[in-house]
Order: sequence, then structure tokens, then C-alpha cells
Amino acid sequence: MSSTSHAASKTGLPILRHELGEVLRDLRQNRGMTLRDVSAKAKVSLGYLSEVERGQKEASSELLASICYALDAPVSFVLREVADRIALQEGVFVPESVPDDLIEDLTPAI
Amino acid sequence: MSSTSHAASKTGLPILRHELGEVLRDLRQNRGMTLRDVSAKAKVSLGYLSEVERGQKEASSELLASICYALDAPVSFVLREVADRIALQEGVFVPESVPDDLIEDLTPAI
Repeated sequence: MSSTSHAASKTGLPILRHELGEVLRDLRQNRGMTLRDVSAKAKVSLGYLSEVERGQKEASSELLASICYALDAPVSFVLREVADRIALQEGVFVPESVPDDLIEDLTPAI
Repeated sequence: MSSTSHAASKTGLPILRHELGEVLRDLRQNRGMTLRDVSAKAKVSLGYLSEVERGQKEASSELLASICYALDAPVSFVLREVADRIALQEGVFVPESVPDDLIEDLTPAI
């Protein structure tokens, strides 16, 4: 898909698979697991896993679920980590538990 | 990929593309946009967009960025919405702003 002319293809926006790959690699290393360990437990090929970690291949939803299972990490946890990294790149403040209107209410008028 | 024997393929775990599709559709409808509006602005085909919304096709990272651009929604926001929905299905409490160890510190010993 990267050769097509999607509206966002040239805007330098953060690319999900790059951040996802980094999060998955960090998680694996934090758990002291090798690519081979995760590959075997997730039943995905070593080469594919390596490419996903390097942000070179998109992970299908099933593949992502399998890798997360192998890493003993909920998919939701991984996605939140990815969202946090992308939010930094987007320069977006994503409210976590406090609704926007509450923040507005709490912010004194200048 | 869905025909392969990934470890998670038969566990009934939440599938990212299903939740992503629902979030994108909800966002589009909340903005009063048609599939055609988003398709034109994102420069993705109507058929593909429709399949992504129905959770039938994986969105590449570039495609997702384009759709989010068309919806005027940060990618990070969309991913957080997806993560929240998946967390509910996983039965996972994902801490939002309070670290785990702080919660443990704050929880009185029984």
C-alpha cells in the first residue's frame, strides 16, 4: 500500500507499524525472550516476527494477537503503548481519565 | 493470515480489525460524513474503506493514517478508543494515569 497516493502518505505522520514494532521488541526484551522464543510460542515465522519488530511488515490482527499472547501482554496494553508513542509524535494531548469539558471547567478564565 | 495456525487464532481473543472498523465507522457517523466523503478525502477506494469499517480488511498503517486524517481524528485517539474496547473484551484493567506500584502502595493491607 505504501506506493499508493493516500492522502497521508507524504505528510510525515507517524506510521503505526513502526511504533508497534518498537513496542513489541521492547516488551520482548524486557521479558528476556529471544525472537526464537516468541516465534515458537506465537507460532509465527522468525523472519516475519523480525520484520514486524523492525516495522517493515504489517502484522495482521491474528498475528498481533498471537505475538501478544506469546509475550503474555494484553493486546489492549500494547495498543495503549503504541497510542501513547504516536500521541507524542502527533503533539496531541490525549485525555486519559479527565473529560475535556471538566478540564475546561477547572481551568480559570484568564 | 486467518487460515494459518497462529497460537491465538482459535482462542476467541478480540480481533483488532473488528474493533478498529467499528471505531472508524462510529467516528465517521458522529461527524455526519458518508463513506463517499471519507473515501474522497482520504483518497482510498470506497470499497476498501467499507471493508475496513466492517472489519473485513486489515488497514495498512498508511491507509489508517489517511482515514484518520479524513476524519480529522489523531491516529492516537483512534487507537486509544480501540484499546479501550479491546480491554473490555480482555477483561483487563489497564491503568490510565496511576502506575501499578502506586496503586499497590495506596491499597491498605488487609
